Amino acid sequence: MRSMGAIDDANQTAVQRILDSQPVLVGVAPAGDVIPGMRRTLILHAGPPITWDRMSGPLRGAVIGALLFEGLARDEREAVAVVERGEVEFAPCHHHQAVGPMAGVTTASMPVYIVENRPFGTRAFSTLNEGYGKVLRYGAYSEDVLARLRWLRDVAGPLLGRALERAGGLDMKALIARQLTMGDEGHNRNVAGSALFARMLAPHLARSGPAEDAAAVMTYLAENDLAVLNPVMAACKATLDAAHGVPRSTVVTCMARNGTDFGIRVSGLGDRWFTAPAEVPVGLFFPGYGQGDANPDIGDSTITETAGIGGFAMAAAPAIVKFVGGTPAMAVQATLEMYEITVAENPAFAIPQLDFRGTPTGIDIRRVVRTGILPRVNTGIAHRRPGVGQIGAGLVRPPMACFTQALEAFAAGVG
Amino acid sequence: MRSMGAIDDANQTAVQRILDSQPVLVGVAPAGDVIPGMRRTLILHAGPPITWDRMSGPLRGAVIGALLFEGLARDEREAVAVVERGEVEFAPCHHHQAVGPMAGVTTASMPVYIVENRPFGTRAFSTLNEGYGKVLRYGAYSEDVLARLRWLRDVAGPLLGRALERAGGLDMKALIARQLTMGDEGHNRNVAGSALFARMLAPHLARSGPAEDAAAVMTYLAENDLAVLNPVMAACKATLDAAHGVPRSTVVTCMARNGTDFGIRVSGLGDRWFTAPAEVPVGLFFPGYGQGDANPDIGDSTITETAGIGGFAMAAAPAIVKFVGGTPAMAVQATLEMYEITVAENPAFAIPQLDFRGTPTGIDIRRVVRTGILPRVNTGIAHRRPGVGQIGAGLVRPPMACFTQALEAFAAGVG
Repeated sequence: MRSMGAIDDANQTAVQRILDSQPVLVGVAPAGDVIPGMRRTLILHAGPPITWDRMSGPLRGAVIGALLFEGLARDEREAVAVVERGEVEFAPCHHHQAVGPMAGVTTASMPVYIVENRPFGTRAFSTLNEGYGKVLRYGAYSEDVLARLRWLRDVAGPLLGRALERAGGLDMKALIARQLTMGDEGHNRNVAGSALFARMLAPHLARSGPAEDAAAVMTYLAENDLAVLNPVMAACKATLDAAHGVPRSTVVTCMARNGTDFGIRVSGLGDRWFTAPAEVPVGLFFPGYGQGDANPDIGDSTITETAGIGGFAMAAAPAIVKFVGGTPAMAVQATLEMYEITVAENPAFAIPQLDFRGTPTGIDIRRVVRTGILPRVNTGIAHRRPGVGQIGAGLVRPPMACFTQALEAFAAGVG
Repeated sequence: MRSMGAIDDANQTAVQRILDSQPVLVGVAPAGDVIPGMRRTLILHAGPPITWDRMSGPLRGAVIGALLFEGLARDEREAVAVVERGEVEFAPCHHHQAVGPMAGVTTASMPVYIVENRPFGTRAFSTLNEGYGKVLRYGAYSEDVLARLRWLRDVAGPLLGRALERAGGLDMKALIARQLTMGDEGHNRNVAGSALFARMLAPHLARSGPAEDAAAVMTYLAENDLAVLNPVMAACKATLDAAHGVPRSTVVTCMARNGTDFGIRVSGLGDRWFTAPAEVPVGLFFPGYGQGDANPDIGDSTITETAGIGGFAMAAAPAIVKFVGGTPAMAVQATLEMYEITVAENPAFAIPQLDFRGTPTGIDIRRVVRTGILPRVNTGIAHRRPGVGQIGAGLVRPPMACFTQALEAFAAGVG
């Protein structure tokens, strides 16, 4: 009993750090300039650690694209050779305070958003969202994909950085709170947040660069309903890093997938990953694609669910069912279910549809194992072949083995 | 029975015109250049016709402000004298294809949005939203109010006009449909619509004028969550004008208030107004104000409810209860009740919270009288003294007498 009380206390400490977090988007800079340990031959990727031979199609595609983009290879064949000769290293984004959607591939010259969680001094980073269609994060690496990455590096990144500086930063907690009252859940549906983001930045962009460049960045923001996903993810990462490392806490501080494995980390269990094979999301597919084309679950965007939004805030986003399947009643049910496995409600993130109840926050591995209820995840679906791109969106859950392994490790450590 | 069938058929014809409407925001121009019959000495106002002696405080204040703005008077005293000498005329906005929120005062040099309902050839106009606080539409006319009006005339209007031209117009029906999936109801809550509006216009604004002016207009849009209300109102007006004039139809095509009287018009009853004293809205007040300060119901913005959004789409906007009072469950109930008095559902305006059921559309005066259920209206609340401004927001209903009078006139005409 004493031990149980100590765990509960530790979990309250951990989750209070989540609730007290104040993530602020402060700027944009090249990854190599700001991400600790970043270097030209390091390729960050989503999810837990993985070697080239076990990488799924979209992650391999994104790695190839990154090598072409960084000038480390001239074509696909050379890129594969560079990897096979061991001339580049791989590491999870999460090992470098970063998060990336889908493949999550991040390299030194890519611009990244910088989010600071001021009360706790944590910082997190995420790339700029590329938009839709054939994009690196879904494993595409054709010339148009690389041209878009160069434009993000040379035009959009610097301009967004100057605009954010003029704006004096952007309070991401307030933005997330607001988008949850506007039909977004912050993971798969970010249209309201992206519109607020674009509207707030527009005057600062207009004052930060040549009219044509500013207009192009505004068009990029206007045409991308996921533009704010990446800073939202970095805000969640900076928040959860503050909650990590509380001894005896069984609160999950990271859930992430690399397209092969799903991995979680737990506040009181150090930097160890608990992994199991990733499931394949079930959802709605774009015309011409079906379930058989889907890659296993991929991306660091599950950091949103870990922070209590995304699938955990489905009730706030009834219109999302047109995108991921299901009914509005099921969306409400999804959120209600998550209160069963979390230790707190976040009053800053009130869901109007639930009479302004706070989002379920702080996944407790004990509750997951005890109830058998797995966290709900909203996600985009990648084609299993590199270079194709997004083919749909849907729902998925982590494998239970991640949680049972973590609980066993916890029991062993406490015992 | 034959007569009843004929009425039902006529109502289907009228409401089908609402459903088939395609309002597009095509530009901005000075009212005097585009509003039919507009001239320097004509003052348009919200609601049904009214004479100076019966005008409420906020409408009188707005008239005084408009005379100062147009250079027809140098101070308040001279403005009153100009009115009392009969040197200006008054007419409802609705008599000139226009609509205006709150006092609705519109004069020749003010810029107005132009909305075209292409399938029916109707056009409607509305002023640019002034923002919050002390504004003409709430009867304020201090120098800062007039300075803002001059900036709208000289900078924002022309720039927004050029931006809309570059954009090739803006599909207002699609925008309204989208904002209803984002927690707006389109009358009192327009934050999502305004953010989408600002995001869409930003790149075109950046290309349409000097950077500093473009940035100032973007700031104006970024800081005004009601920016899109005025074009939404004009879209509803252009829509309902298409449904007006169907012989034997008992569908309401206009509801409007001048701060003293509430008036309605009915499709099959020509241009006649059916009026009764306006109620005082009940709601939540800004600090320092209370129910006793509230002016009777005022404004043309009830055109939104007439078109099936606003109070009729409350279920789509659960967060609005923080602004107007009540609970999210009551917001759902408000919409469900409106199906009792309408003849159709608008599939283009799907409410996610109601499993994507279309908004209740086409108020039938027979159903209102038979059921005793009055239309629901969301509204801002003006101080009853001129020059103070908005003091709150809340809910109100029209007086039943408007509907009984209209039904009597209809019966007399059919008989």
